[in-house]
Amino acid sequence: MRNIDEHTITAAVLERMAGCEDARLKEVMSALVRHLHDFAREVKLTEAEWSAGIEFLTATGQKCDAQRQEFILLSDTLGLSMLTVAMNHAKSPQATEATVFGPFHVAGAPQLPLGSDISGGAVGEPLFVQATVRGRGGEPVADAVVDVWEADAEGFYDVQRPGAQPQGRAVLRTNAEGRLWFRGVAPVAYPIPTDGPVGAMLRATRRHPWRPAHVHFMIQAPGYETLITHVFREGDPYLDSDAVFGVRSSLIGDFAQHAAGRAPDGSVQEAPFHTLEFAFVLEPAGV
Amino acid sequence: MRNIDEHTITAAVLERMAGCEDARLKEVMSALVRHLHDFAREVKLTEAEWSAGIEFLTATGQKCDAQRQEFILLSDTLGLSMLTVAMNHAKSPQATEATVFGPFHVAGAPQLPLGSDISGGAVGEPLFVQATVRGRGGEPVADAVVDVWEADAEGFYDVQRPGAQPQGRAVLRTNAEGRLWFRGVAPVAYPIPTDGPVGAMLRATRRHPWRPAHVHFMIQAPGYETLITHVFREGDPYLDSDAVFGVRSSLIGDFAQHAAGRAPDGSVQEAPFHTLEFAFVLEPAGV
Repeated sequence: MRNIDEHTITAAVLERMAGCEDARLKEVMSALVRHLHDFAREVKLTEAEWSAGIEFLTATGQKCDAQRQEFILLSDTLGLSMLTVAMNHAKSPQATEATVFGPFHVAGAPQLPLGSDISGGAVGEPLFVQATVRGRGGEPVADAVVDVWEADAEGFYDVQRPGAQPQGRAVLRTNAEGRLWFRGVAPVAYPIPTDGPVGAMLRATRRHPWRPAHVHFMIQAPGYETLITHVFREGDPYLDSDAVFGVRSSLIGDFAQHAAGRAPDGSVQEAPFHTLEFAFVLEPAGV
Repeated sequence: MRNIDEHTITAAVLERMAGCEDARLKEVMSALVRHLHDFAREVKLTEAEWSAGIEFLTATGQKCDAQRQEFILLSDTLGLSMLTVAMNHAKSPQATEATVFGPFHVAGAPQLPLGSDISGGAVGEPLFVQATVRGRGGEPVADAVVDVWEADAEGFYDVQRPGAQPQGRAVLRTNAEGRLWFRGVAPVAYPIPTDGPVGAMLRATRRHPWRPAHVHFMIQAPGYETLITHVFREGDPYLDSDAVFGVRSSLIGDFAQHAAGRAPDGSVQEAPFHTLEFAFVLEPAGV
């Protein structure tokens, strides 16, 4: 132990965890140390690079607050979030695919009745969403809790605007036929926040920060696996280069644009509006 | 790109950095992404574990401030710091080995003349250090800048005591014969700070937080590689299980204990005191 070198140190660190009774924790931490050390050895990490890494991670943690989660953004942009989602959700061909949670969900969003305008005054062209929630066998899922959140037409979520009231987010419940409808704003492509360490990393590696337009959904119902996903806008120029690798073909929806006139909710719109129809299919729980 | 899965996502993330002109940055980031993804796939990381990881990293960043560097502590306890040091310092048999920098160095410590008491009133039995700084060819290194820092007899560095004045740290310069002498306090074994996320990690994995007693040295001189090292106390019970893997046999010194009487600086000590003699040997720069 007194003369470990760059090759023997890995075994020395693993040996130090010999007394850990939590087998899973031991497995995860051991693998983390092995891969971390392998990384450092492979690139022969310099002390200046190590120091830059320490500073980067510190700044990333310090950028986080109640409204900002820079480490989730880092995980998203390095593909770790989508990798974790992909591993943990069996993709039966019928069920709706999951995608990244992202850093902009807020627990305790306003609970609104079906048909509500969830925009809260957010800027943007109106979007009328009509969706169904069903099980794999085609059965409607009644009373499912559906968390919806989206950015406004300037590409910002409410939590990115200091002191803002809830905008573009709500918790709705499906009706007895598993149907869901509400009004929001048409989503647009937007850059993820680039004023922090993750933005610096993207610039340094010459990556763009854009995400294709989308609306977030989290659907929870007893007896079904919780679905966390997006519906993306067909035709968006960033569908093939999402900064967080979240796009799935099956999650692309037709956000149809309409001239001024009668909307699906019966109202008369004096400006253009959009509609989206989407069918969500849930996996049974515990498979 | 729209249907990447847990296996193809790694190539997709690497491809996104295709435009990065900084070849070394691209190499390091690509290796980081590959090893990070390999880790997640190997352990089949769950979403709850991913979430716990995000929270751990966030808390680690938020524990950092001007006096506390929790990410260095994390790197130290995972063996990454010592691995990086070991890779970056060629060990010619004559030169003094390097070890971890640690999180307790402070730039701009008091510049004191040779023979000074650097303790600044820190609690502890007196320690009289007499050292030489030479090159590999045996030549004395005159006017070398020597940063010294150490914990007190309660195991705390000054920066761990809110509002404290500098204690147990100084910047000294070797004389024309490359000699260095000063008075401090005898170091004791101490636990690294365990009131943060790193402490929680050590407890969860059943690791102790102790470091064997030591004094830190950073020695800088034109024409020589900067040496960052410790001198450890012979006989310390933690020499074989340093929480940060920093011990090297060649860095263990004899902190001899003496009964009350005349000290090396000519003073008469009315209580027991300690002496340490150590010979530092610097590598030439740029080898």
